[in-house]
Formats: sequence, C-alpha cells, structure tokens
Amino acid sequence: MAIIRSNVAAAAGYVPGEQPMGGDVIKLNTNENPYSPSPRVMEAIRAVTAEQLRRYPSPSGEAFRKAAAGVHGVGADWILPFNGGDELLSVAIRAAAGETDAVAFLEPSYSLYPVLAEMNGSRKVVLSYEIEGVEWRLPRGVEEVKASVLLVVNPNAPSGHLDPVGRLMEIAERFKGLLVIDEAYVDFAPVNALEVVKRFSNVVILRTMSKGYSLAGLRFGYAIGQPTLLRELAKVRDSYPVDAVATAAATAGISDQAYARETWEKVKRERARLSGELQKMGFVMPESASNFLLATVPGGGGMTGRGVYEAMKSKGILIRWWDLPRISDKVRITVGTPEQNDRLIAELRRELATDRH
Amino acid sequence: MAIIRSNVAAAAGYVPGEQPMGGDVIKLNTNENPYSPSPRVMEAIRAVTAEQLRRYPSPSGEAFRKAAAGVHGVGADWILPFNGGDELLSVAIRAAAGETDAVAFLEPSYSLYPVLAEMNGSRKVVLSYEIEGVEWRLPRGVEEVKASVLLVVNPNAPSGHLDPVGRLMEIAERFKGLLVIDEAYVDFAPVNALEVVKRFSNVVILRTMSKGYSLAGLRFGYAIGQPTLLRELAKVRDSYPVDAVATAAATAGISDQAYARETWEKVKRERARLSGELQKMGFVMPESASNFLLATVPGGGGMTGRGVYEAMKSKGILIRWWDLPRISDKVRITVGTPEQNDRLIAELRRELATDRH
Repeated sequence: MAIIRSNVAAAAGYVPGEQPMGGDVIKLNTNENPYSPSPRVMEAIRAVTAEQLRRYPSPSGEAFRKAAAGVHGVGADWILPFNGGDELLSVAIRAAAGETDAVAFLEPSYSLYPVLAEMNGSRKVVLSYEIEGVEWRLPRGVEEVKASVLLVVNPNAPSGHLDPVGRLMEIAERFKGLLVIDEAYVDFAPVNALEVVKRFSNVVILRTMSKGYSLAGLRFGYAIGQPTLLRELAKVRDSYPVDAVATAAATAGISDQAYARETWEKVKRERARLSGELQKMGFVMPESASNFLLATVPGGGGMTGRGVYEAMKSKGILIRWWDLPRISDKVRITVGTPEQNDRLIAELRRELATDRH
Repeated sequence: MAIIRSNVAAAAGYVPGEQPMGGDVIKLNTNENPYSPSPRVMEAIRAVTAEQLRRYPSPSGEAFRKAAAGVHGVGADWILPFNGGDELLSVAIRAAAGETDAVAFLEPSYSLYPVLAEMNGSRKVVLSYEIEGVEWRLPRGVEEVKASVLLVVNPNAPSGHLDPVGRLMEIAERFKGLLVIDEAYVDFAPVNALEVVKRFSNVVILRTMSKGYSLAGLRFGYAIGQPTLLRELAKVRDSYPVDAVATAAATAGISDQAYARETWEKVKRERARLSGELQKMGFVMPESASNFLLATVPGGGGMTGRGVYEAMKSKGILIRWWDLPRISDKVRITVGTPEQNDRLIAELRRELATDRH
C-alpha cells in the first residue's frame, strides 16, 4: 500500500505471546505474576466514580507519581507514567533516534526492540550477548556502540540472567546516547539500577506494573529518570497516556508494598524449586533473577525446544519457544503457582520418559 | 540536551486544557459530555476480576471490535481500538509520514496536530479554513496538497462547524496520501463520513469514547477503516494498546446506544438554547454540529476574548480561550447541563452589563 511508509509496510510487526481466553489452560508463556493483585487494587477499581470516567484524567497521573516516588525515594518529577512499559520504549526511541540514526539492542532479548526500531525507520544495531554454557553477559565494548539509543533489559528476557549494576554504571558513563535500562523483571531480582539513573542524565529506567504487581491487564508502566530527561519524553508521549481507572488501580498497587513483596518472595521460592526440578531432569539454565527460566532441553533423547513446547501445549500448558538462533533448543517457562509448577514438572517427566523409550 | 532529537528538544509540546481537580468549578473548557456514562459502564467496571487484571488483555480489544462493528454495520476487522483517539493520530502520522514527508492540517483546528507532526520530525503544511463572518469551510484545492497525511476534523474544533460529507468524498478521491477524518465530535452531528471510508482505502475515520459516550477519563478511541489499512496501523500501534478494564467499560458503553443517544439529544437541545441566549447578548458563532460553541465576543464594549475567559474563570466557570490568530476574539464554550449553562448565561449577562457601564 503506497500510502504507508516502506519501513512499516515491509515489517511483520510484533507477535505477542498466545493469550487464550479460555479458563483451563495453565499459562506459563507471557511472564505474568501467578498471584492476584493486591486487594487494595480491586477496592480502588470498585471505588471509581462516573464523574472520574466522564472527565479527562490527570494528564500526568499525579497520584501515581507521588506514590511511586515515595517507594523509590526520589521526587515525583523523577517518575513519568506510560500506557505500559512498551509505550515508554517507543517514546524513548522516538525522542532520541531519527531515520538516519541507529537503535542498538542485544540479542537474544525482548523481541519488541527491533520492531520499534523498524517502525521508527531507524537503523538497527544488533549486539550479541556473550554466552558460554549457561553464563550470559553483556559483551565487552557494548558502551562504544555508535547509536542514539541503547536498550538493555536487566534481568534479561528471555534468559532471566542479571548483569551486575556496576557494568550498567560503566555503560552509562561511556555510552554517548540514551541508555534505556528495561527493569520489567527487576522486582524478582536482588538489586536494581536506581543508582545509575541518579548519577547519569542520559539514562532512563523502565518499570512496569505488569509483572511485580500482577497488573498485566492494566497497561501501566513508568519511567524513572532525571527530570530534565523526563520532560523531553513527556512531549513525545501521548498527552493523556494513562486513564483514570488505571491510575487509581496502579496507585493502590504500588502503595501496597507489603503485599507485592510477599508475591515476589513466593515466586522466588518457586523459581528455586522449579529450577532444581528441571535440572534433575537434565535441563540446564542461567541463574534467573526474574520470574521465568530459560531452560535448555536435555540433549541425547532427541527432544527439541519445539517438541517440548508442543508436547506441553497438547497437555494444556503454554510455555514459550522461539525458532531463533541460539535459543531454539530452549524453552522459556514462567514461574507459576506451586500447583501449576507441579503439573508442569509431572508432564515434563512423563514426556521425557516417553521420549527416551 | 544533546541526546534528544532537535525536533523534540525545540518543541514546546502539547498543553492540555486546564483540569482542575477540585469539585466546585463548572468545567466548560475541554468538551466533556456533561452527562454521566451509561450505568452499564459502571456495572462492567464493578464486574472486573482480579484475573482480568493479572493477565495480559486481548491485544486487539476483540470484544469492543465486535460491539463497535455491530453499531456501525461493518465487519470487526474494520475497527481498531487505540489508547484514546490521540494515539490513533500519532500512529497514522508515524505510519504514513517520514522525516522528509509532509503532514498537512487546517488552521484553526485541533492544536495537537502540529505537535504530533513536530514530534515525528515531519514537515508541516498548514492550510487555512476559509472564514467569512461565521461561515467556515475547507478551502478549495485542499485535496491537491502535497503531503503524506492530511488531518481534517469534522465537525471542526474549535469552530464546531460541519463541512459536507460530499466535500470529504471529493478530497478522499483526489488526495494522494492518507486522509484522517477526525470525527471526535460526530455523535453530536446530523451526518458522518462512514460512506467515505467504505469507498476509499486511503481514509481512516477517528472515533472516540471520550465525548459522545462520556468516557474521557478512560482513554479509548478507535479507527474505522478498510482492513488492509488497519493492518498497517496495527503494526505501528502499541502491542497491547487498550487495557482489560477500559475495553470492558468501552464495550458496555458503545453497546448502550439508547442511553448514549439520549445524552446527545439533550446536548443538542441545550446547544440550541445556549446559542440563542449568547446571540441575544451579541455573541455570534458558526452553526455548531458538535458539543461546543465558538462564540465571537460582542464588539463595541471593549470586551475581549481573554477578558471574557478571565471574568468567567474568576466566577468559577472555565471556558477556553487561545491567544492565536483569527480566534483570539472568540471563546470556546462546551455545552453543559441546563443548570451549568444557566450559570454561565447569568454570569455573562452580568459581565456584559458591568462592562458597558
């Protein structure tokens, strides 16, 4: 279609993970938190009034900014809400990179990054994680990349591994463009990059309410960054990016830290147990600081990543598999509830037993 | 800030109308519907479950697509939801215009259009409405403009006037790029451009739940267009643009046509009455097909647009005034409830009387 830009027309677009709307499937494929959001979120939604719907919302989600600022120990002007973390990624790229500029990201990583670069008409610079066995790390020299934006997700998806904050500090200091540290999964990690953004004005941290706060259905993410940078991102963002209901719900969610932290601890305990059980079956995987595991399928028995994915799907358990270089022998498994993980473990054991006969 | 693109750094960004959060102000400045949303919307919000929040929403808001398709008598693939109509405007520009392309729009019109063109780094082509007294019309030859995107809001904001659908049909046929017909206010008009989009594949209609359905707080808009075009816009859009709660609420809202139509009729009756009262005081204005009036302040008494705006603000009534060419002698007044309009009329009468002494 000639009226559409060639970079858009030529692109395939982003393909989200499967979202079956039926109730019986065990969904361990899109990294949702297996536990419900805080009861206070439900109360906030029930308390929404007709008048809040009728009128335009606060353009900058002020209530949320204050609550998040309190949690992170920064000023409210260090927080900027978005319609999901994905909107922040798109805005960061559009704010910093034009059509003659480059957008750099790592591979394997979040598969939306190349799509957003393509939609912006920018050049893509693909950097590769160094992978030795189950050890993943950011490559040496990544900070020297010539690009207007560098996107790093830490903990990484789909590996779940965590690069040290000190490494991000080095990159922030030397990289000449906008460094986006995508901390979508950081609530399940032992450390975060808040100190990096406090020191460097070319850094923005992405956070989301989707994972740690069990609010994937709500589309609410936010940036943490120095106010001078956030003011520029705010210009590119939608003028009313977050709605009144989502703002009320997200504010209630982030304010109930005790509840959220309890779900994180439960996920971390199950992550350790699931990882142990998978290893007993011969899977190997990087140490995960997130709420998922990237498990390499045991060699020898003729099993493949695709085979495990399809076998589990036939049992009503969705996990994620990509037909992509370096990860096609692996499956990504979201940590579920103990009962969901038990079902998965049992089905995997059965499958491996069948397969070896 | 060198890491930000120059087109962004140089821009002022969009300035939304004032959104006082206090309760006592009569808000006739941002074109909200003065009536509450359908009770079914409130029921849909109360019925949201924790599980809907925990999981990712339907990426394309399927329930809403089906409901809107039924209302408009088109297939569900002719409907594409967005996080507010503003997201559709941004996506349409990004899908069709690169940095070396032009984005054309009329003036005076929706002040977000130039901001979005600037953020995209595109060239702006500004076309002027032909204005003779209170008669506004799209200029002859607008269809010949060399641009990748042409944005026309009909009924226009801030004038409220309606250009004939036949005129839009001519433009669609001859214009070589993507024609966006922004029908944010069409629920208050006697006709719409649905036939234009059915005939031409280079046209997309913008609709919003903000005005006609009293859901400005929800951020929910949608495109009507031919499926081949919408598939391209979907690539540029956020991968999960509409959240589970907003989708449920918007679906309930659009499904209750009887309720919505009743609010439109009430607004239209009040529009006629308010217009008559303003004319008695010496204001003149284009015939409005929207839920607001662009009233030229009576000459002679030394009153100015700014003066009327400030006088009303001091009385706790917000209306809109712009310090811009061709409209600085006018104020834009959203049609309120009968009680709100009565208050406004009384205060304006008092102000004019004072002023003439």
